[in-house]
Amino acid sequence: MSEGSWIRKMFEEGIALKQRFGAENVFDLSLGNPIMEPPVEFLRELKQLAEDPLPGMHRYMENAGYITTRAAVAAQLSSDTKPGFSADDIIMTCGAAGALNVVLGTLLERGDEVIVFAPYFVEYIHYINRFYGVTKIVPSDEQFIPRLDALDAAIGPRTKAIIINSPNNPTGVVYSEVFLKQLGELLRNKEKQFGTQISIISDEPYRKIIFDSLKYSSPLCHHPQSIIVTSHSKDLALPGERIGYIAVNPQYSQKKELIDGLIYCNRTLGFVNAPALMQHIVGRLQGVTVPVAEYEQKRNFLYESLTVMGYSLVKPQGAFYMFPKSPIEDDVAFVRELQQWQVLTVPGRGFGSPGYFRISYCVDERTIKGALAGFRKAALKVKLG
Amino acid sequence: MSEGSWIRKMFEEGIALKQRFGAENVFDLSLGNPIMEPPVEFLRELKQLAEDPLPGMHRYMENAGYITTRAAVAAQLSSDTKPGFSADDIIMTCGAAGALNVVLGTLLERGDEVIVFAPYFVEYIHYINRFYGVTKIVPSDEQFIPRLDALDAAIGPRTKAIIINSPNNPTGVVYSEVFLKQLGELLRNKEKQFGTQISIISDEPYRKIIFDSLKYSSPLCHHPQSIIVTSHSKDLALPGERIGYIAVNPQYSQKKELIDGLIYCNRTLGFVNAPALMQHIVGRLQGVTVPVAEYEQKRNFLYESLTVMGYSLVKPQGAFYMFPKSPIEDDVAFVRELQQWQVLTVPGRGFGSPGYFRISYCVDERTIKGALAGFRKAALKVKLG
Repeated sequence: MSEGSWIRKMFEEGIALKQRFGAENVFDLSLGNPIMEPPVEFLRELKQLAEDPLPGMHRYMENAGYITTRAAVAAQLSSDTKPGFSADDIIMTCGAAGALNVVLGTLLERGDEVIVFAPYFVEYIHYINRFYGVTKIVPSDEQFIPRLDALDAAIGPRTKAIIINSPNNPTGVVYSEVFLKQLGELLRNKEKQFGTQISIISDEPYRKIIFDSLKYSSPLCHHPQSIIVTSHSKDLALPGERIGYIAVNPQYSQKKELIDGLIYCNRTLGFVNAPALMQHIVGRLQGVTVPVAEYEQKRNFLYESLTVMGYSLVKPQGAFYMFPKSPIEDDVAFVRELQQWQVLTVPGRGFGSPGYFRISYCVDERTIKGALAGFRKAALKVKLG
Repeated sequence: MSEGSWIRKMFEEGIALKQRFGAENVFDLSLGNPIMEPPVEFLRELKQLAEDPLPGMHRYMENAGYITTRAAVAAQLSSDTKPGFSADDIIMTCGAAGALNVVLGTLLERGDEVIVFAPYFVEYIHYINRFYGVTKIVPSDEQFIPRLDALDAAIGPRTKAIIINSPNNPTGVVYSEVFLKQLGELLRNKEKQFGTQISIISDEPYRKIIFDSLKYSSPLCHHPQSIIVTSHSKDLALPGERIGYIAVNPQYSQKKELIDGLIYCNRTLGFVNAPALMQHIVGRLQGVTVPVAEYEQKRNFLYESLTVMGYSLVKPQGAFYMFPKSPIEDDVAFVRELQQWQVLTVPGRGFGSPGYFRISYCVDERTIKGALAGFRKAALKVKLG
């Protein structure tokens, strides 16, 4: 719990700071809660359904979700990531968090191991614990790419799955085709060695938020036992609506058994189905994304500003986070220092990586620009550079 | 699983029958999926928010839900059931199923016992299993009132909670003030005997669907350790939207600890928060209910028709189900007989009570009237009366 509460802790301290200094004098870079409103296409579809409701559009449907929505998701996924998805490979869920719980609840028996790469989104650990799984943490290199030698050593006969997240929270790193190919090969070697199946669970809410004209590489192209969990929280700026999906690799062995299990788990974990109205809307918006160029501009501005000040950081290629090195060893002390200047960030130990801190820049320009003074003063104070 | 799959099984067989005979010739009384559309007030609020969106209305909020929505729920509950609720006693959830999972996930340690009264909504068992709880089934009497002598015998030192559901699915029975008072007294005696706390989990999605000018009696007035789990699936006809709440008795001992646990569980089970847009809307509609008189008319018509045909049944006082005795011992055989006449119901063993069958009458008049011929023919076939 102590690690898990860092994001929440900063959120709560932020509220207190805003009350004390006024919201306009606090520069909150702690949360991944996009300030962006949903795209106009979303507002248009919502308005149309509100004005001209479909009969029964708020009723129960199949636990997996509307067939029309699942077909639209399958078509878009087939074009974006890997060909061959059909509606039956898709289960609509209450966001990526819901999706991940459903997948873990389906795959895990008590004592099964799940591998997570540090730095990681801390909720993973809570989800794995929930199903009596055992988390194994594997480190990444200086560029935040998971260390495959360490992964090789960490996999054992009880390894059921590994969770990957690209574009990554908290680093913004995007995994390359080459890396994913090596990862797939390693997993199949280990599957042979232990006579097991090891699934990749690919957590992809930032898949469409990607910069520098990069093309997204899908792990599903490199490992048949792979499952996407994702949401429209970030690409359509709908985090409060809890709408996402699970997509099972069409080549997954024993796919029917897995999907039946996922649907059962989606029902009996109490989700029942993903929210109906949002299913209707996102089914029509699979080709739509928030203006990613805005995030790219913010990334550019903040990356250059911090680099000039002497901060050391890996240039993010996606999502809306960066994960600079803390200029002093104690990341919590440095985050406290930034807080003196009303700049809110999250210490790296909240992601299993002490010595770093996370900046979330899905905020307005005013907040980013306003935070620079604090970053500068804190850097001077610790005699950076 | 075999018991649990009866509702789903009938659902699937219904689809096949509709394809074969045409939807207009199949009389589907198997599912609790209201044909009713949400009230006009709902449509009005949805339209207003679609036309004039609140800034940030689809963003993350506190995991417990919007304070304005929780305050509105607390005010209405205080007036409907028991005075004294505040916003802090309420947690908005993804429906009653989500609420129930969050409560069980918070209360239960492996091996803790939960008491359920037969006939029961079968999902309860799946939820309890999910958290490694042990289900103890306690029978009801001929009027479908839980047998307190059997409850007394069933409670032991590991009994953590009992689930009650009034108005009841599948019987339509509403528990009286007198019964709830006796229940509370019994539980406190047992708490003293074992030095434990035994919570009532009151599953109340049908609370507002109540007939014969009855007043709803709340178990919270008779036992401090009590928690409401409910949804707006039935009272606002929104089952697909997954919007409901948990309300903790303001007198619950160690209330703060429980509520912190519930919020943590709501987050880490992957719900994160109840859908944002629906929270905005239902917060404004706490005083609104679907036209209950329509259900009462259907209850009257169907109850009288079946009684005249010789069926034996307890007159329901709420919800939109009835649970007649099967005229032959084998309820599955009788349900199959009804199916010969394209009438779909669910065998009592799907609710832990063989020898009965469930009728769901949240359907249109055509379906109810059309089913009568089948009920008559099946009754004649088995020489009823």
